Amino acid sequence: MTDPALTWTPTTDDLRARLESLRSAAGDHGFDAVIVSPGADLRYFIGRSQGSHERLTALVAPAEADPFLVVPALERPGWTGSSAERLGIEMPTWEDHEDPYRLVADRLGPVSAIGVDDFMPAMHALSFENHLHLHVSPAAEAIRALRMRKGRQELAALAAVGAAIDRVHARIAEWLRPGRTESEVGDDIARAIVEEGHERPDFVIVASGPNGASPHHEQSKRVINAGEPVVIDIGGPAPSGYFSDSTRTYCIGEPADRDFATVHALVRKAQQAGIDAACAGSSAESVDIAARAVITEAGYGPYFITRVGHGIGLEVHEHPFEVRGNTTILEPGMVFSVEPGIYLPGRFGVRIEDIVAVSAEGPRLLNHSPRDWTLV
Amino acid sequence: MTDPALTWTPTTDDLRARLESLRSAAGDHGFDAVIVSPGADLRYFIGRSQGSHERLTALVAPAEADPFLVVPALERPGWTGSSAERLGIEMPTWEDHEDPYRLVADRLGPVSAIGVDDFMPAMHALSFENHLHLHVSPAAEAIRALRMRKGRQELAALAAVGAAIDRVHARIAEWLRPGRTESEVGDDIARAIVEEGHERPDFVIVASGPNGASPHHEQSKRVINAGEPVVIDIGGPAPSGYFSDSTRTYCIGEPADRDFATVHALVRKAQQAGIDAACAGSSAESVDIAARAVITEAGYGPYFITRVGHGIGLEVHEHPFEVRGNTTILEPGMVFSVEPGIYLPGRFGVRIEDIVAVSAEGPRLLNHSPRDWTLV
Repeated sequence: MTDPALTWTPTTDDLRARLESLRSAAGDHGFDAVIVSPGADLRYFIGRSQGSHERLTALVAPAEADPFLVVPALERPGWTGSSAERLGIEMPTWEDHEDPYRLVADRLGPVSAIGVDDFMPAMHALSFENHLHLHVSPAAEAIRALRMRKGRQELAALAAVGAAIDRVHARIAEWLRPGRTESEVGDDIARAIVEEGHERPDFVIVASGPNGASPHHEQSKRVINAGEPVVIDIGGPAPSGYFSDSTRTYCIGEPADRDFATVHALVRKAQQAGIDAACAGSSAESVDIAARAVITEAGYGPYFITRVGHGIGLEVHEHPFEVRGNTTILEPGMVFSVEPGIYLPGRFGVRIEDIVAVSAEGPRLLNHSPRDWTLV
Repeated sequence: MTDPALTWTPTTDDLRARLESLRSAAGDHGFDAVIVSPGADLRYFIGRSQGSHERLTALVAPAEADPFLVVPALERPGWTGSSAERLGIEMPTWEDHEDPYRLVADRLGPVSAIGVDDFMPAMHALSFENHLHLHVSPAAEAIRALRMRKGRQELAALAAVGAAIDRVHARIAEWLRPGRTESEVGDDIARAIVEEGHERPDFVIVASGPNGASPHHEQSKRVINAGEPVVIDIGGPAPSGYFSDSTRTYCIGEPADRDFATVHALVRKAQQAGIDAACAGSSAESVDIAARAVITEAGYGPYFITRVGHGIGLEVHEHPFEVRGNTTILEPGMVFSVEPGIYLPGRFGVRIEDIVAVSAEGPRLLNHSPRDWTLV
């Protein structure tokens, strides 16, 4: 009954191919090695991310030698039986009184250019600089080029978790009733996110009435009234690690604000324009420009205060970002949100968000719950 | 009934004094400015940490000018009414299509030395390097000197959350019974951590039998048997933001392994030696050395595979670290764990952990639950 794509994990061969791509990308970008700390990048390359606080865990991928994974000795048992072991990757360990940066420097030998992942804490990046006698550079371009282009099974994983969040939106009428607080509704949604196949909820935004005018409002003790718009922006990772992220703006009963229906229809129209622009060969910014044009022409431009979208995968926000100035060319396999919004301070907000995959056949939506504001 | 120190927050004057200290520490360390990204450092200086994913939020504290807080425009409403607003700190915002690093560079003007916090993601640190035409340095020494020395109310907050985790340990016999899995016991403990006054559980290690030999084992579906040692290492932040962290090693009924009682007594003795060494004027490493000597003399040295402790405050692991090589001199107000352990692969582990505060009157324990292994 459960979609197996919710729990898909890459095979050892998949991971080996990704590591091989990282090695050659490192060389192509002029790096002697790329160093990746715990996070989504590490999970992408070795199938697992683990690491805690200030102790260094790091994948070191030299352009001309085998990769290795530096692990604190006390955490080594946690890697037993892991995908990293199946890859046969060497795992040198270090104890608390030892210097892990020195360990990496000794293994690498003389180097002149090192790339690090986007989220490596500065304490680690700057320690590598000290020990390797160089300045590190962002490896982001080398890594994002790999992660942005989703393979067939990654696309299936994203479609499966998209369907899971659609099932949660389909149940909103169970919980969204006047007289309840945002937090009460949010707690019910959080439970449903897990029931419908996610590993955990990652964010549950329930923004009623004027709270909807703040794009990142989360939840509050505010009681929701009949006639108020409610922005519900929810998602989380499946056991596969791939994220969902979908927003609907509902209204309980007849909208009290006479402009709500017009604004909602306008955001839908803008979103469709953005989705239609998500074509291979176009730029990432063209998606933003297409959706924004609809809203600007209707006079609501100043109230669309965010970019139109962000890539999604093993992170809820990743490349490519659909924002003015991003000239990245869209390719089949790229997946991102299209989520225009209109935020009217003191009144309400409307946001509608779906995930779209670029394909050779045109934009492919990964969310399908009704976009209407009525509660069924 | 609830200890008000669990929910203590610094006043605006407290925060203003901290910011002033940061400004002068920046100058003392030769920085034109220190830049602090979301995390415990930011919470320490402005009373709140907020920020998401890839968008830059950063406190910029120049040595010779007023600090300011760079905030994504869409998150600005979340700062309304915050301690940062009460501080009167300026909050320049940036929109998604704008460059926040350029904004900081323009405001700072020409600079030659910038410090960044330990956990700033490399993507931000390296972007500052690009825009400021320099190489950033760790601000860790400047910041840790402030955060390591806890004030009177911070000590009260740590004592209150220490008492809260003691209350959880006092209830362990409610849940720890043969035939239950580690996860079942862990779920009960996690609930109690909140019931006893924490904001949330941060870690719940339940490591039974041979799992106890892995210091960072978390939980599993393993069924706990009578006669097995169980390492229970638990903690989390109070609403104040200050963390608890306390470990006890229990045994259900008579220990099946004939060495357990001896090893447990040895770890207790080593811990007491570590606590006794936690005196103003001694070095951080001397705490490790004192505890380790007891274990080494008894022939178990190779099985004590971690440092003896870590500082604790707004982070569960922070400076000062009690590890060989750390010559930091202990001062009144420094607070850290003392947690020696013996880890016997394939058999069991024993760890006993309490938080101790250095004071002019000698070491002051912030945990008081019985250290014995018997379940009452």
